[in-house]
Amino acid sequence: MEVGQVLRMNGGVGETSYANNSLVQQKVITMTKPITEDAITKLYCSSYPVALAIADLGCSSGPNTLFAVSELIKAVDSLRRKMSRKSPEYQVFLNDLPGNDFNTIFRSLSVFQNKLGKQLGTDSGPCFFTGVPGSFYGRLFRKNSLHFVHSSYSLQWLSQVPEGLENNKRNIYMASTSPPDVLKAYYEQFQQDFSLFLKCRSEELVDGGRMVLTVLGRRNDDPSSKEGCYIWELLAMALNDMVLEGVIEEEKLNTFNIPQYTPSPVEVKYEVVKEGSFSIDLLEVTEVNWNAYQNETDLSDAFKDGGYNVAKCMRAVAEPLIVSHFGETIVDEVFQRYREIIADRMSKEKTEFVNVIVSLIKA
Amino acid sequence: MEVGQVLRMNGGVGETSYANNSLVQQKVITMTKPITEDAITKLYCSSYPVALAIADLGCSSGPNTLFAVSELIKAVDSLRRKMSRKSPEYQVFLNDLPGNDFNTIFRSLSVFQNKLGKQLGTDSGPCFFTGVPGSFYGRLFRKNSLHFVHSSYSLQWLSQVPEGLENNKRNIYMASTSPPDVLKAYYEQFQQDFSLFLKCRSEELVDGGRMVLTVLGRRNDDPSSKEGCYIWELLAMALNDMVLEGVIEEEKLNTFNIPQYTPSPVEVKYEVVKEGSFSIDLLEVTEVNWNAYQNETDLSDAFKDGGYNVAKCMRAVAEPLIVSHFGETIVDEVFQRYREIIADRMSKEKTEFVNVIVSLIKA
Repeated sequence: MEVGQVLRMNGGVGETSYANNSLVQQKVITMTKPITEDAITKLYCSSYPVALAIADLGCSSGPNTLFAVSELIKAVDSLRRKMSRKSPEYQVFLNDLPGNDFNTIFRSLSVFQNKLGKQLGTDSGPCFFTGVPGSFYGRLFRKNSLHFVHSSYSLQWLSQVPEGLENNKRNIYMASTSPPDVLKAYYEQFQQDFSLFLKCRSEELVDGGRMVLTVLGRRNDDPSSKEGCYIWELLAMALNDMVLEGVIEEEKLNTFNIPQYTPSPVEVKYEVVKEGSFSIDLLEVTEVNWNAYQNETDLSDAFKDGGYNVAKCMRAVAEPLIVSHFGETIVDEVFQRYREIIADRMSKEKTEFVNVIVSLIKA
Repeated sequence: MEVGQVLRMNGGVGETSYANNSLVQQKVITMTKPITEDAITKLYCSSYPVALAIADLGCSSGPNTLFAVSELIKAVDSLRRKMSRKSPEYQVFLNDLPGNDFNTIFRSLSVFQNKLGKQLGTDSGPCFFTGVPGSFYGRLFRKNSLHFVHSSYSLQWLSQVPEGLENNKRNIYMASTSPPDVLKAYYEQFQQDFSLFLKCRSEELVDGGRMVLTVLGRRNDDPSSKEGCYIWELLAMALNDMVLEGVIEEEKLNTFNIPQYTPSPVEVKYEVVKEGSFSIDLLEVTEVNWNAYQNETDLSDAFKDGGYNVAKCMRAVAEPLIVSHFGETIVDEVFQRYREIIADRMSKEKTEFVNVIVSLIKA
């Protein structure tokens, strides 16, 4: 599987689109807002750039795409008003893999820009939006051309499925039953990818430039602990059931592995220090419930079904991977079964995603 | 009609796509190559920038999208080799209206970049490609952030259908039977749009920055002369026939006008001088046959049919406009009739598009 060609969130704005099923990811951006605002405040006040270049890496397609950057722009605008400074011009780079649905983003931009323009007021600098297709595990921007990088729920995706996972049978990700060489292969791929990411960004950021990265991760030191792996173990259960019933070939399942790694804060810190281009301003861990609608009132019945919500969210994220490996025909059934398994587990235990957040300064 | 929302070339890579029906436009880019190469050579040698930012405005989606900029990059690379200079990094901005099919461009980029990388060799600087959705009759880029602007067969499109065309009945564009106020309305819209274009670009280009603009135009001073208008007059004939047969309502036809202006070199020069930000290095007029396949050997029978080729090309360009005004159902018939009319005229007279090319320097 060529991850760069296959991995993408479901496009469009329909029933199964990422745009309509990414509330968890939005919650995480909201939770992280104090950290991103603190970082961009420090950045702005350290140099008062007349043109501010902000990149969102792994922007996807949907409301989240423009949510994070618009909050950043509003924060700077509010700051410069307090200080009676002239507004900078804003350059926003929206990056994702080439399979991402950029058309839908671009077609929503003019409404968004009008709204943002009204919120900011007439004396605010123009905001220029551009789309940057490509893998962030490689250079994407000119040298010294960025001031600020934001990335949320993207860096857990690896550049490729690690090599040497032949012994990971019946699993589709790291799991408690994965042999040590599988865990090692996953970890080494993470180290290589994350280190390359840091190196590329250090070339692209100006001196003093900043990054806030939120990665789906874990607290535990054990990479096969439930925290980081459980959501995929439940998908593996659905797929294994379908193997037993003869709907999916066993060989197909054995050769399917998710190109993801959910790191611990210690692992993130270790790579940052080793790579050497960035200093750590802050490193934090938070949790968010799998079901973004939990604790929300006034829900229609459909949204009260946590299993339904979480399965739809996971479908928006994983459908292109599943379809590319197993084909189109089984996908509805996979996610129907997945939904039932998730609902069962959610009724019995606490189910949370763990977010590792790191705020970095280019040394 | 909101031109910014409606105007686009047919997307995708299918039978009626712009990607598969834009050979005329490619020929024009090739014909203009000596002028663009001369301009970028002078630009490069005036300052030897370490990072070179090139924008293609109205890039569309298809082989032409990357053709012009890749030729520009190759020209600079060849130059810097001769001079034993280190390669600049290249930043390419691909701009078109938000309805353009950017997804198809982005998904073709990795193959293209690999090929270009091989042509340039390993010691050449990286090329970063970004998509910039928006109207070029407004700011698109940060101040002083561009070195070179290229635009081919785009600037004849106006920002809107001019107001005051109520008396242009039975016509869909300027025509010999259009009353003077219609010609005046079209010309004033062109003046306003082109002047705004120049002003915006002058803010975005660095001092000494350059533009090469190729506009579908005319030689003749009369804006309603056949040169610039004939291709649309033939479409109007097809539509009028369908009104007579009751397939299209007369009122529908009377309210349809093409948002285009095909200027003369004198008109282009007049706006440049009046706006004042640019000096003219070169102003030239050339012609290209409507049928791009003319004079080509080894054609399959389908391509020998000039009417077929030209009608397909015009369909790729005008279908979204037609569909938006008249609806989906009549579009096949419109272009079938258009094809027959075009074929008839091509067999009887010389049919050419006129290209007005201007090479400009930011003063």
